[in-house]
Amino acid sequence: MPYFDYNATTPPHPAALAAWRETAEQFWHNPSSPYRAAARAHALMEEAREQLAALVGGSPENYVFTSGATEANNAVFAHFAKSSPPGAQVVVSAIEHPSVLEAASYWFPGRTHLWEVNPRGTAPPLQMLGREVVLVSVQAANNETGVLQPWNENAIRVQAAGARYHCDASQWLGKLAPGKLVDCDFVTGLGHKFGGPKGVGFLKIPPGCDFHGQRGGEQEHNHRAGTENLPAIRAMVAALAARSAELETRQAEWERARAGFETALLSAIPGTVVVGAGIPRLWNTVMFLPPRHANTRWVAALDRRGFQISTGSACATGHAGPSHVLAAMGVEAEAARRAVRVSGGWETTVADWAALAKALSEAAVELDG
Amino acid sequence: MPYFDYNATTPPHPAALAAWRETAEQFWHNPSSPYRAAARAHALMEEAREQLAALVGGSPENYVFTSGATEANNAVFAHFAKSSPPGAQVVVSAIEHPSVLEAASYWFPGRTHLWEVNPRGTAPPLQMLGREVVLVSVQAANNETGVLQPWNENAIRVQAAGARYHCDASQWLGKLAPGKLVDCDFVTGLGHKFGGPKGVGFLKIPPGCDFHGQRGGEQEHNHRAGTENLPAIRAMVAALAARSAELETRQAEWERARAGFETALLSAIPGTVVVGAGIPRLWNTVMFLPPRHANTRWVAALDRRGFQISTGSACATGHAGPSHVLAAMGVEAEAARRAVRVSGGWETTVADWAALAKALSEAAVELDG
Repeated sequence: MPYFDYNATTPPHPAALAAWRETAEQFWHNPSSPYRAAARAHALMEEAREQLAALVGGSPENYVFTSGATEANNAVFAHFAKSSPPGAQVVVSAIEHPSVLEAASYWFPGRTHLWEVNPRGTAPPLQMLGREVVLVSVQAANNETGVLQPWNENAIRVQAAGARYHCDASQWLGKLAPGKLVDCDFVTGLGHKFGGPKGVGFLKIPPGCDFHGQRGGEQEHNHRAGTENLPAIRAMVAALAARSAELETRQAEWERARAGFETALLSAIPGTVVVGAGIPRLWNTVMFLPPRHANTRWVAALDRRGFQISTGSACATGHAGPSHVLAAMGVEAEAARRAVRVSGGWETTVADWAALAKALSEAAVELDG
Repeated sequence: MPYFDYNATTPPHPAALAAWRETAEQFWHNPSSPYRAAARAHALMEEAREQLAALVGGSPENYVFTSGATEANNAVFAHFAKSSPPGAQVVVSAIEHPSVLEAASYWFPGRTHLWEVNPRGTAPPLQMLGREVVLVSVQAANNETGVLQPWNENAIRVQAAGARYHCDASQWLGKLAPGKLVDCDFVTGLGHKFGGPKGVGFLKIPPGCDFHGQRGGEQEHNHRAGTENLPAIRAMVAALAARSAELETRQAEWERARAGFETALLSAIPGTVVVGAGIPRLWNTVMFLPPRHANTRWVAALDRRGFQISTGSACATGHAGPSHVLAAMGVEAEAARRAVRVSGGWETTVADWAALAKALSEAAVELDG
């Protein structure tokens, strides 16, 4: 069953399933307990942290494992709310994931500024930053459009202005090389977006940071309390290692497969607009506006044909109303209600993409009829 | 290898391993996505919630899945800190887990009262409650001593005084029947304490409560954002179901096995004191004070003999200093430094307990020599 909703979640990588099972069956002891089997679990924890740091960059002690990106993103704003002077402000881009947008306005009510994006869907380099701003949060790649953000340039400018920079890289990691991501002060990563299990992610913090997530134990080098989820942690790192090994050699091939799909799509359904066409995007993502029919009808028509596609962020599916990402890009609500997102994966073949284009073409005939 | 540290964590139950694997391999879709495979995952989520409510009590919609007890306990205090008038106070027992103690004093600095316990290790029914107190938190069973708390009576008194009652039942659930636990306003449960996987737990909230944990999505009936960890959730519920089925028929047998161990221990090492002897305790737990030698030496001597035992809470192993639980019970620091905790499990046999007593006896000879 061709799956085209990798940005919502991914099937677990075989290496992740194997690592989870091995750890849950053999290394289930509490890493904080005082005997050798526990010490072995503890050593595997730190080994996973070292491997993660080797894959993403920086020092192992700056990586804090969390239960996911939502926890990590919430914790960043909670940390700044508690450690900043009264009146401190934050800046978040208008196209952030709700776990950034809502955490920001919850912890900095009336003191959260939206960084507007341009019609291309990128947050342009910020020119001015008020002295009260302590934190700027702009994602690495957008989950709906796949558009890449100039996070490296942004981080340099924000840091030069004396603020901290947080980058939610949930959609980037595993799909693109991390580059200088580690230069961002805070970086969020999420296991199930790259073939890891659900319920595990991480937060990279700056050196020497007194970050303290949930309280009640000295786990995670005293940064986050709670018994470590070693099976999920090892599984996540195994998945990221497997993805990272593929990236260098296969990225051009993936780009070509996606380009072939876009050509076929535009020819099959004339009048379709690909959001972010010609702009650097994740190689797996195509958000498009077909000329007719609500996106929910397209999704249902494709589901009947055995293809799983999406109307946008799975986290926002329950919401009424069009995508906040498209609205921020200036797309009118009527057009945004047609927006369809397809997102392939590392295993998606040229034939899968071609089959998807054909299914969309057939769906167009059905819906028009 | 006989394992006697079930209160720190448990080996995953085969039913939990099977449920995790089935779900991760077959039902990994994002429950919030808009196609049939996702709807199937969503239905399994709600089925797990219904099964949990049937096992613990109350309505499914009052159960919020979390990443563990530490998240749940922290979230309870964060919720009251945000929703209570200025000056509101909380009461927590002196023998709570650090995830309650530290969360309370973090969210209610200077407004957290310690509920003293008696030398038996129980929090006696509270007679008076100040009008400013919005929340009282006393666990169901202590993780170090196994002593059961009068939570049912406490809940009734606290609620009659107009406050809410939170009960961390991490050590109770799976070992004892839930009884009227659901009558406590908030109840914390933790998967890996009863054979579930790590990284998953739950919080029972009162009907109509506007509880809101981490933010950024409408998952968990809008109580907690973040992609649902369905494999771990189904595995946890499968483990609790398996444990619950055993409880009724096997509890007397487990009690007898533990009693046999205590008799053998007291005879093998004269002068040993069992903490909470004669007081209702979890059937699996024995905390004792041998007459000589620091607990770390006992643990190491047992580890060399292939037995895994503990000095107390795994979460506090990194700490210098004796147990805060024993200190609250009036045990002097010198004696508390000898405290050893052994905690068996559902699979622990009479022969395992006898072998542990023999190993302790041999260790005494070694350490005395």
